[in-house]
Amino acid sequence: MDQKRYAVASKESLIRVFTVPEAPDSTLSKIESEISSNLAGFLNENIAAVEKPLHEIEKDFQSAVIPEEPTFVSAYAQDIMEQLVAHSVHTAAPSFIGHMTSALPHFVLPLSKLMVGLNQNLVKIETSKAFTPLERQVLGMMHHLAYGEDGSFYSKWMHSAKTSLGAFCSGGTVANITALWIARNRLLKADGSFKGIATQGLIAGMLHYGYKGLAVLVSERGHYSLGKTVDLLGIGRDNIIAVATNNDNKVDVQAMRKKAYELQTQGIKVMAIVGVAGTTETGNIDPLLEMANLSKELGCHFHVDAAWGGATLLSQTHRHLLAGIERADSITIDAHKQMYVPMGAGIVLFKDPAATDAIEHHAEYILRKGSKDLGSHTLEGSRPGMAMLVHACLRVIGRKGYEMLIDKGIDKARYFASLIKSDDDFELISEPELCLLTYRYVPKQIKAQIAAADDDTKIDIYASLNRFTASMQKRQREAGRSFVSRTRLTPAQYDHQPTVVFRVVLANPLTSEDILKDILAEQKELAKTDPVFKKYLSKYMR
Amino acid sequence: MDQKRYAVASKESLIRVFTVPEAPDSTLSKIESEISSNLAGFLNENIAAVEKPLHEIEKDFQSAVIPEEPTFVSAYAQDIMEQLVAHSVHTAAPSFIGHMTSALPHFVLPLSKLMVGLNQNLVKIETSKAFTPLERQVLGMMHHLAYGEDGSFYSKWMHSAKTSLGAFCSGGTVANITALWIARNRLLKADGSFKGIATQGLIAGMLHYGYKGLAVLVSERGHYSLGKTVDLLGIGRDNIIAVATNNDNKVDVQAMRKKAYELQTQGIKVMAIVGVAGTTETGNIDPLLEMANLSKELGCHFHVDAAWGGATLLSQTHRHLLAGIERADSITIDAHKQMYVPMGAGIVLFKDPAATDAIEHHAEYILRKGSKDLGSHTLEGSRPGMAMLVHACLRVIGRKGYEMLIDKGIDKARYFASLIKSDDDFELISEPELCLLTYRYVPKQIKAQIAAADDDTKIDIYASLNRFTASMQKRQREAGRSFVSRTRLTPAQYDHQPTVVFRVVLANPLTSEDILKDILAEQKELAKTDPVFKKYLSKYMR
Repeated sequence: MDQKRYAVASKESLIRVFTVPEAPDSTLSKIESEISSNLAGFLNENIAAVEKPLHEIEKDFQSAVIPEEPTFVSAYAQDIMEQLVAHSVHTAAPSFIGHMTSALPHFVLPLSKLMVGLNQNLVKIETSKAFTPLERQVLGMMHHLAYGEDGSFYSKWMHSAKTSLGAFCSGGTVANITALWIARNRLLKADGSFKGIATQGLIAGMLHYGYKGLAVLVSERGHYSLGKTVDLLGIGRDNIIAVATNNDNKVDVQAMRKKAYELQTQGIKVMAIVGVAGTTETGNIDPLLEMANLSKELGCHFHVDAAWGGATLLSQTHRHLLAGIERADSITIDAHKQMYVPMGAGIVLFKDPAATDAIEHHAEYILRKGSKDLGSHTLEGSRPGMAMLVHACLRVIGRKGYEMLIDKGIDKARYFASLIKSDDDFELISEPELCLLTYRYVPKQIKAQIAAADDDTKIDIYASLNRFTASMQKRQREAGRSFVSRTRLTPAQYDHQPTVVFRVVLANPLTSEDILKDILAEQKELAKTDPVFKKYLSKYMR
Repeated sequence: MDQKRYAVASKESLIRVFTVPEAPDSTLSKIESEISSNLAGFLNENIAAVEKPLHEIEKDFQSAVIPEEPTFVSAYAQDIMEQLVAHSVHTAAPSFIGHMTSALPHFVLPLSKLMVGLNQNLVKIETSKAFTPLERQVLGMMHHLAYGEDGSFYSKWMHSAKTSLGAFCSGGTVANITALWIARNRLLKADGSFKGIATQGLIAGMLHYGYKGLAVLVSERGHYSLGKTVDLLGIGRDNIIAVATNNDNKVDVQAMRKKAYELQTQGIKVMAIVGVAGTTETGNIDPLLEMANLSKELGCHFHVDAAWGGATLLSQTHRHLLAGIERADSITIDAHKQMYVPMGAGIVLFKDPAATDAIEHHAEYILRKGSKDLGSHTLEGSRPGMAMLVHACLRVIGRKGYEMLIDKGIDKARYFASLIKSDDDFELISEPELCLLTYRYVPKQIKAQIAAADDDTKIDIYASLNRFTASMQKRQREAGRSFVSRTRLTPAQYDHQPTVVFRVVLANPLTSEDILKDILAEQKELAKTDPVFKKYLSKYMR
């Protein structure tokens, strides 16, 4: 607790906080120097290995009253080490392969501090200056990566006051919202006496164009942020149509086409189709070329949500998997996923430099017409200079460096898949197309049992397996040595029934083959003591 | 340029980037140590004093091609110092009083690095653990600051899986969008066979409830993000009604009431009224109590945009200025403005814990029902742990420390206003209610001339003064010693004609009275050599 408090806050002590840096031997400086010299060691040492239950952690965050008196920085630093850092998630650990957050390159830490110290605001040039051209360059580079326009295109548009080739934002969700906001506004644009949806609203737009409704079509594996988007945009969640996937978790474009024409006959306009390039749950990529053709056929916006998989474009070996993305009207890519940038670096790109006209806005005191302020084309207002960290990674790692990282991740996933397949007690549920796969623990006796069971028994066993998989995933997380995540799919091998599976993402360059073997070994051990599994055994394995 | 490149990127060198920290004598480590030991000195020394034109800066950010080969971190660090840092804006400088970004307390720098190193993702507990209870506590503290509910309220709701007392977001714009998204969805909620706007969309909602349109009413001084919000939500910019302010830049509530009833007779439902607590341009606070009464009368949502002024609640001396805010349904506060937190810390608060039901969403792999994942109630998805920096500031500065900072800023603004008023060559345009004021340079001869002029000549002089003020502001910025911003108002003393003014925000605790005197002195000097002013003199002062 905060024993060490100033008796009374004085103006002098307050000003010191703004003028006098932490002494080199202060608690906070020591923490910082540990982070600088050995981040992995710092995290390993200071994050508690065994999970503390959430309700226990909450006890340290109970008071809703802002403390009246100041606290010494040293006392605060100590509190935060015990109460916060110790009970954080070791996202960088090479054995934590359950999420899309990986280890970070070391150089981003000092650069982040520089970014915070500069405290620029990217909404306008007046508070960002060189950061604005830098961000425009990063957007240009990412645009070139996806669309590959020629030099004259970028000379003309990259630093143009009229537009922006994309937008930086806090993450993939805001990127997706921005893309579909533009799609909606371009569809219901000004026309004759109608001043456009941005000005007159959705209802006036629908009346003017004679649409009974709008719809967005996406694979059933589409990210949940798309549901949020159509809610926000006033289109309604009923009008985001989840189209079935094939057994490889890629959208069935023929089914999408059929659905689109059905909607058309009902007077419902397909506003956009969304391709997923790296589904969150299985890592698969929709047939983007076919979808590009379909969008042309329908005359609708084609958005690609490549939040996770977009970085694959950096690999000459694998970028063919995203063929067709260059025909997308807009693309979402999260640099904080497979581009190894810290949290908070979403990007949306627009094929047509005029796209942002649909959401352009101005104000009296900033974003004046003709200015190069980035804020005239973004959903967000004030924003930090995260683009600098993307810029740094692109330069320091380089295209070829990223290629190695991407290729290595995919190789590792294939290796892990082979481990799983060669072990009778596991079952691969989805093959890795990128570095993501799903699997589950199904001992061979159970496999045999399923093969022999009638339909009712099967459903019963499936339900038990789901409970068992969820229980194991939770216990593995709590043990704190490693982490895989879980999700629910409907795979063919389980008769399209809801199936709980382990999900792993192998982007962390520090995850070794031995770690992968250890994770399977740990799961075998965990199974032996799993209470749900024991119950299962006593029921079925007499 | 990047002379020093790896000839060929090797896997080993790539892995080093993730495992080997920067050597203590490396360029980047030296930069970092300078920042740690003397941030102000670092910024003063490394940010170029004289402005380089934007088109010159852009030359360093021309290529749209991601470099193939990696760059040494040291080479990159050097480039970035020359090309980016040198041409950034010195937002922390005590003489840069034109924007809402101030100097930062020193301790946030090492804490930011800790935050980045931990790289938590606040969308879900699985990737944030203790950060989730911490963020919920900060939201609880801010909620208590504004609404002052009792202990049992916070015990019940602060850590509840069912809801959230607010949402962290990247900034005030997303906060405002979230607030009005909730307002819209609560208004057009599920009812009988209607499943609610979130599900069925805006048009179905309007038909069900029989509204011809929706409107949002706000002062003409409302932030431009509100226009963006109604565009995004499908309501349309025509339906955000800008209500006139009185001469003190506070909204005329009687005019707002009249407008609301007019709309009502046209079948247009007032969805929300928005009070501004600290307008961006003049720093004034709307009569929130009267507005609370009006919202009750109209049965509509009452949102308060206190992005900038909300921190005033931390001062017992001045919080009375925001009386009535405790009756708002939602409140926006930016911690990166008057709470001295780095860029990227927006907050929206909800009076009613059930408010977030209107935008609740779930997914298969995260945000499962019953989880305490913050992501089920936020517009954004993945988000960094910025709440930690707000938590740190609240604890280390304390309520009383903030009070001193707020009070000092307001005192300083009053002092600056008195300087302006006591000098015949300046004119105060808006009195400081908080620490923000506007003024302009109008030498006494011109004042005399205006007083004597006929209406046509007046309009002519006004236009010249506008050009002159804009020119001076630009030249002062380019000279690089100090910075005031400018905006355009329609003050009574200029017959409500568009009037370009200087705008200053005095939140930086390091801005001294001497600096304020120097800024006026510098402006007097600049005026003497101003080309627009010379032209004016040659035309009018023969």
